Amino acid sequence: MTRIVYIDGRYRRHAYATIPVEDRAFLFADGVYEVCLVRDGEIVDLDLHLDRLWRSLGELRITPPMARASLTVAMNETVRRNRVDYGLLYLQISRGVAHRDHGFPTGVRPNLVMMAWPTDPDRGKLLARKGVKVVTLPDIRWKRRDIKSVSLLPNVLAKQTARESGAFEAWLVDDDGTVTEGTSTNAWIVAKDGTIVTRNLSSEILSGVTRLRALDIAEQEGLRVAERPFTVAEAKAAKEAFQTSTTLLVIPVVSIDGHRIGDGKPGPIARKLRASLEV
Amino acid sequence: MTRIVYIDGRYRRHAYATIPVEDRAFLFADGVYEVCLVRDGEIVDLDLHLDRLWRSLGELRITPPMARASLTVAMNETVRRNRVDYGLLYLQISRGVAHRDHGFPTGVRPNLVMMAWPTDPDRGKLLARKGVKVVTLPDIRWKRRDIKSVSLLPNVLAKQTARESGAFEAWLVDDDGTVTEGTSTNAWIVAKDGTIVTRNLSSEILSGVTRLRALDIAEQEGLRVAERPFTVAEAKAAKEAFQTSTTLLVIPVVSIDGHRIGDGKPGPIARKLRASLEV
Repeated sequence: MTRIVYIDGRYRRHAYATIPVEDRAFLFADGVYEVCLVRDGEIVDLDLHLDRLWRSLGELRITPPMARASLTVAMNETVRRNRVDYGLLYLQISRGVAHRDHGFPTGVRPNLVMMAWPTDPDRGKLLARKGVKVVTLPDIRWKRRDIKSVSLLPNVLAKQTARESGAFEAWLVDDDGTVTEGTSTNAWIVAKDGTIVTRNLSSEILSGVTRLRALDIAEQEGLRVAERPFTVAEAKAAKEAFQTSTTLLVIPVVSIDGHRIGDGKPGPIARKLRASLEV
Repeated sequence: MTRIVYIDGRYRRHAYATIPVEDRAFLFADGVYEVCLVRDGEIVDLDLHLDRLWRSLGELRITPPMARASLTVAMNETVRRNRVDYGLLYLQISRGVAHRDHGFPTGVRPNLVMMAWPTDPDRGKLLARKGVKVVTLPDIRWKRRDIKSVSLLPNVLAKQTARESGAFEAWLVDDDGTVTEGTSTNAWIVAKDGTIVTRNLSSEILSGVTRLRALDIAEQEGLRVAERPFTVAEAKAAKEAFQTSTTLLVIPVVSIDGHRIGDGKPGPIARKLRASLEV
């Protein structure tokens, strides 16, 4: 758990870390966020996270609360003050605090909040060794999933349903039967012919930072990759399946809706990508 | 603006009304809300709002923070402490405060926040006399609009787009070309044959309290009503159009996407329903 929280220019003890009730993230989910991995006290893929954050802000027309350089300083300071060697930095920017009214308020400043906490570096490794189960659920989210907004209620509900059915994650399925992404992960398969498949970027999915990094590695390794939608049936028949996220990097999926994937063990492509990202 | 805010059992001055950063409504839009009209210091249609609130909580499996009777006492006390004769009571319940993780946390208490503020009783009357313009926009919201959750970012964006195009409200249109509802209103038309049409209840729309009340009145008055979806084309060709909401009751719509509705003036059905609701 975070001990020190950055709120509106100040570093506060967790117990005193509060936001006004009229913050628009609280009333309207009118805010964006990023979760960054911290390794050896350093924020991993910082530029990619900031690129995405700026894009999210731009799409929602929220003014960045400060320049990238200043934000970077504050992010690093939040990590430092929480003494995080390995863990996560959480950053959220809401449109600001204003009397409740749906339209954009005028004359408000965006509200920046940051937290950081240590996590167990072995957790991902253990999960990766065994692989995880996923279930598929209808994707009932809004249609701008490319914006990393805090409008996460459908993700919450799907994650909970997954857990209650003994799965680690839910892969969400659009009306046309194709997998969009997981509730907090990007979804991948290795098709019968050995091609690595993950959905192409569009408003249907978030551009995951680890997704981008894994694509880079696959390219460097000369692996065949196709960025396109795939169906649940295709996923179930795949040689491998796995998911990527900032928090856990690459995690092999060994079962989808109770159907064993491949030989039911983590596959070589997932292992290779994970090994490259763990460095 | 609210002067006194109820938070977690206490009535606090507005300036000190804060919530923990780890409140799940702030991080995940994991909460529900109600807005009630206050008239002569009394909450209007209290039972209907509480029915809907309990339904929203049930759908999200959030435990009610207290019994209906106790909540009613606190709601009335919030109105009283804010000295609201005519105005609004805002109530929000989030799942609780917990370390950030998508799935439901265990052992947390739901977090109840209430505000109340006076509004100008003449505002609705003036808008009703002139009528308002609406624009239509694609409905990009999630698919559980029957739950009154704070997951309102798409509503925020659509309301803002409407305002910037000189309209008062946006009516949202599903993939099949039918109007679902407004960003904070239910949508109605009076068809060519005089039938009052408003969309039937489903997961596509919120069950508006004023919608229910208006349906009751129409029935009492012996007016012909059909609860069914209608297209934008049908709305543009309608004799009348109007919208209902708790905050403004019945507001005639005199233009849709710049197309004049009827003779471009508020129609008799909207006037009649409004008059009955204003009593």
